[in-house]
Amino acid sequence: MPTPPPLPRVAWIGLGIMGLPMASNLVKAGYDVTGHTLEQDGLDRLAAAGGTPAPSVAAAVRGADVVVTMVPASPDVEAVAYGEHGVLAHAAPGTLFVDMSSITPRTSVELAEAAARKGIRVLDAPVSGGEAGAVEGVLSVMVGGERADFERARPLLGALGTTVVHCGPHGAGQTVKAANQLIVAANIQACAEAVVFLEKSGVDLEAALDVLGGGLAGSAVLSRKRHNFLSRHYPPGFRIDLHHKDMGIVTEAARAVGAAVPVGALVASLVAAARAQGDGGLDHSALLRGVERLSGIEAGRARR
Amino acid sequence: MPTPPPLPRVAWIGLGIMGLPMASNLVKAGYDVTGHTLEQDGLDRLAAAGGTPAPSVAAAVRGADVVVTMVPASPDVEAVAYGEHGVLAHAAPGTLFVDMSSITPRTSVELAEAAARKGIRVLDAPVSGGEAGAVEGVLSVMVGGERADFERARPLLGALGTTVVHCGPHGAGQTVKAANQLIVAANIQACAEAVVFLEKSGVDLEAALDVLGGGLAGSAVLSRKRHNFLSRHYPPGFRIDLHHKDMGIVTEAARAVGAAVPVGALVASLVAAARAQGDGGLDHSALLRGVERLSGIEAGRARR
Amino acid sequence: MPTPPPLPRVAWIGLGIMGLPMASNLVKAGYDVTGHTLEQDGLDRLAAAGGTPAPSVAAAVRGADVVVTMVPASPDVEAVAYGEHGVLAHAAPGTLFVDMSSITPRTSVELAEAAARKGIRVLDAPVSGGEAGAVEGVLSVMVGGERADFERARPLLGALGTTVVHCGPHGAGQTVKAANQLIVAANIQACAEAVVFLEKSGVDLEAALDVLGGGLAGSAVLSRKRHNFLSRHYPPGFRIDLHHKDMGIVTEAARAVGAAVPVGALVASLVAAARAQGDGGLDHSALLRGVERLSGIEAGRARR
Amino acid sequence: MPTPPPLPRVAWIGLGIMGLPMASNLVKAGYDVTGHTLEQDGLDRLAAAGGTPAPSVAAAVRGADVVVTMVPASPDVEAVAYGEHGVLAHAAPGTLFVDMSSITPRTSVELAEAAARKGIRVLDAPVSGGEAGAVEGVLSVMVGGERADFERARPLLGALGTTVVHCGPHGAGQTVKAANQLIVAANIQACAEAVVFLEKSGVDLEAALDVLGGGLAGSAVLSRKRHNFLSRHYPPGFRIDLHHKDMGIVTEAARAVGAAVPVGALVASLVAAARAQGDGGLDHSALLRGVERLSGIEAGRARR
Repeated sequence: MPTPPPLPRVAWIGLGIMGLPMASNLVKAGYDVTGHTLEQDGLDRLAAAGGTPAPSVAAAVRGADVVVTMVPASPDVEAVAYGEHGVLAHAAPGTLFVDMSSITPRTSVELAEAAARKGIRVLDAPVSGGEAGAVEGVLSVMVGGERADFERARPLLGALGTTVVHCGPHGAGQTVKAANQLIVAANIQACAEAVVFLEKSGVDLEAALDVLGGGLAGSAVLSRKRHNFLSRHYPPGFRIDLHHKDMGIVTEAARAVGAAVPVGALVASLVAAARAQGDGGLDHSALLRGVERLSGIEAGRARR
Repeated sequence: MPTPPPLPRVAWIGLGIMGLPMASNLVKAGYDVTGHTLEQDGLDRLAAAGGTPAPSVAAAVRGADVVVTMVPASPDVEAVAYGEHGVLAHAAPGTLFVDMSSITPRTSVELAEAAARKGIRVLDAPVSGGEAGAVEGVLSVMVGGERADFERARPLLGALGTTVVHCGPHGAGQTVKAANQLIVAANIQACAEAVVFLEKSGVDLEAALDVLGGGLAGSAVLSRKRHNFLSRHYPPGFRIDLHHKDMGIVTEAARAVGAAVPVGALVASLVAAARAQGDGGLDHSALLRGVERLSGIEAGRARR
Repeated sequence: MPTPPPLPRVAWIGLGIMGLPMASNLVKAGYDVTGHTLEQDGLDRLAAAGGTPAPSVAAAVRGADVVVTMVPASPDVEAVAYGEHGVLAHAAPGTLFVDMSSITPRTSVELAEAAARKGIRVLDAPVSGGEAGAVEGVLSVMVGGERADFERARPLLGALGTTVVHCGPHGAGQTVKAANQLIVAANIQACAEAVVFLEKSGVDLEAALDVLGGGLAGSAVLSRKRHNFLSRHYPPGFRIDLHHKDMGIVTEAARAVGAAVPVGALVASLVAAARAQGDGGLDHSALLRGVERLSGIEAGRARR
Repeated sequence: MPTPPPLPRVAWIGLGIMGLPMASNLVKAGYDVTGHTLEQDGLDRLAAAGGTPAPSVAAAVRGADVVVTMVPASPDVEAVAYGEHGVLAHAAPGTLFVDMSSITPRTSVELAEAAARKGIRVLDAPVSGGEAGAVEGVLSVMVGGERADFERARPLLGALGTTVVHCGPHGAGQTVKAANQLIVAANIQACAEAVVFLEKSGVDLEAALDVLGGGLAGSAVLSRKRHNFLSRHYPPGFRIDLHHKDMGIVTEAARAVGAAVPVGALVASLVAAARAQGDGGLDHSALLRGVERLSGIEAGRARR
């Protein structure tokens, strides 16, 4: 019986709320993971999880077959990729560079082009599912790039999520993630408008949500955020600050391809307003607070 | 063993696409149903299903324990209820009047008040689930009115739908239906914007819908309308003309109670636009055609 | 030299903030005005201005050549017109009935049809210009109905306003008034968004309004509401409560004719929100308060 | 009698539709203008106007007291400013660098900071008034930066426009320009919605615009674009493509400071849609075409 090929050596950059449990899941799956982040705490926790901390991106990348980045935003990806001590400068030709950050599709395309000139292959592979999905390894992973590279990355990504889908060329993963965030924000906002309308009309909200959830209005938002809507408590979950960042991405990306998103644009402005009103640290279901304020009722207090 | 009490005699007004299969389901459940509509065809089909056609509302209502109305809009309910030959003039005191039409909450409240003066009890009990749900008897029924009347109507309503919920006082059923339509329209519009954004970005739409459907963006809209979105065919289903009527109801009702519905208002204007552009007879998933036109691509042609 | 024909005798119904000064201006112009309202105070003030108070609509209308109504909303017009003691029951055939209230175009059309059956001629003639315009007799009057009737009413209307325009058939005056309110509300909202954007950006607001007012962004809103925007004081003026009523009219009327008004619909929801938040009694320039709240800054305090 | 101080020598970068007539106006006012652009035609026309063509930015800038840039967008400003042969590399310390392009406030602030490190003073000074205003020297100029620099630039800017206002610190000129574009686009869109509503209602549009223009709905948009609205001809003027760019600026800048712009966001999406539908080359009053299409009537044909 032949020995299976050894697992690729992985360099992991970015060990935050999402990155650390994801990297840990790779370790559990048997991968040799060398990681880097700027916070000592992240390095310590990676070591505790069985990975190898590295003092720099360059050090982490050296000798890696696959480099994974999981950082907050486009400028972070660009710093990690293009910096003097960055991935493109230090990864070997043939390396597969999987960027799992949520950034604009355009940045992903540019990165792939720049990397190709160094013989480095790139996939964009943003995720949805939040911190809980990262910890439990049940993320959805949306992948853009060439199919052969996708096939090469699939086993590794399969250790991080349960749904791993190739969506198209470079940037396609980011585009699907952006579309996801548009639908989610619009649906939360619509449900929040419905909730305020129902309560101002004297309807039994719990009974109403039962019926709504069972029909064509039913959705993951309505079932997973039901408790938040009823209790007016909004522990994250997924913070409005992050959804605000993502609405900026989808607004810009839709603009770039000439796709009309009137509801998306309005919802983006309402997410921005929620943040301006101090709700940025709450779960995105707290868009309900904005609708309450607009309707002249005190936000955030349970009405039961 | 005691004989169960006899089933109430039912007068059914309105035998259209929804009313006929609903009345037929009552007959199948053993109810004695006398029905009236203005179209001979409806009367014939009721007879074929085992019901008794009546030549007028007054004739149908005479001797009935329960009167059910299922007509298109507020003016139709008012004509059937208040007319010289209508329900309030001819139903006996103690009759239970269940209006299953989708109308404004205010009309339901007014009807209950007017009927009370004649000793007639009223429930508003609009449904969701469409023609298919009516035929298969799996509608959701949202009921407003007094709880004792709801309990009295529950067995009958249980022959029409699988989810039968008491939502609050008179009008509460209509309010929940209106909220349902707000969420559904907003979610269809958001999904349509996402679809155009995805395709204009060169993403594999089918793969994208797979990922989207599995996460927080997932919804009954995304799964049940998936084929329409992919094929660009929009057989109703639920027609934009009807959803347009319902968006008028939710807009007015939200206005009446001072509930802010910015996204609802915008979506109502887009549904109205779809109708003005000639799409009123298509399924509401055809809001996608409006987004396509706004984005400068020819509407209605499958892009595959 | 021939004697000019005597001025028509006028019955005036509605002596509120707008109606009283308008009726008084007719008296000043030499008209014999018999007026009715439900408040004794209004009757007294009409008498003080030289008019004749009447104890009922019927009494006011008897012997009048022209009936003018200036009441708050459609139900009031309908009560005055259709009631047992109302205009249609008591005015003589050939009477000219000029309704200057702001109501839905549809109600105006229905009124004209009902009145025609009694041989009574109808014009809809809503105004803009507010209380100040009513007092000073410089209103704009938008008239719908037949041209011959318009010519007959023109001298009388000329005593009330400086711009008196025939806009088309029955309802056309209301339609133009509704369009006016759509543009005004949208422009106030856009200016309010600009004001908050400018101040949050650290710009000198007074200097900015100077430049904006002189270019393509310049408008009557920007010049007449400038002081309100700068001082954050909002004495009416034209109250948000009334603008809310009018946005309901334009939303419904646009819906009825299939005209797409996405921005109008959104602005209507923001006007409704302003009212729900307790600003209904302020001038409509107080939409600025709503934008401030959405932007997380305390509403209503001058930032200087 | 003392000799007046000599006029500063001016380097002018960007000789397009706006830049060429502006530079020519400076020549007429007695300034010694050395200009550069990438198109030979622009250089020839500058020479014909009495200016001195230069083969590069560096050559134009050498010996200049004031550098003016008038280029399309942020990347162009950045190329001209930061390039190896650009302004910061070649202008002498003490030079005043006046960027009259319309770009994001943030880029203006960054430019001022970078230039300060070289001893170069910066003003942002975007304009409104379009090509006609540039040719006739009647632009509005909105200036951000330090007051002393504004005073130094004021005579020169006074040769280009009739309204020259200091609005605040670096970026303030851009902010005011962005606010201007928000108000203008929203007002055009609102007027377009009103126009379609009026015509679908059977109103005489010309009479209606007369009344509307005279009251609180009156604006520069309504008077200057009246002919376009009536004739359905949209010769630029100011192209939708450019307004689209500017709506991107105001959306991003409002987002950056946390200012809620719900109507601005919706209008930005409608401007983007107009462009996607092929109207980018028309005057921005052609937003009317979008409303016509949304309302199911053929766009662009005069209805008279």
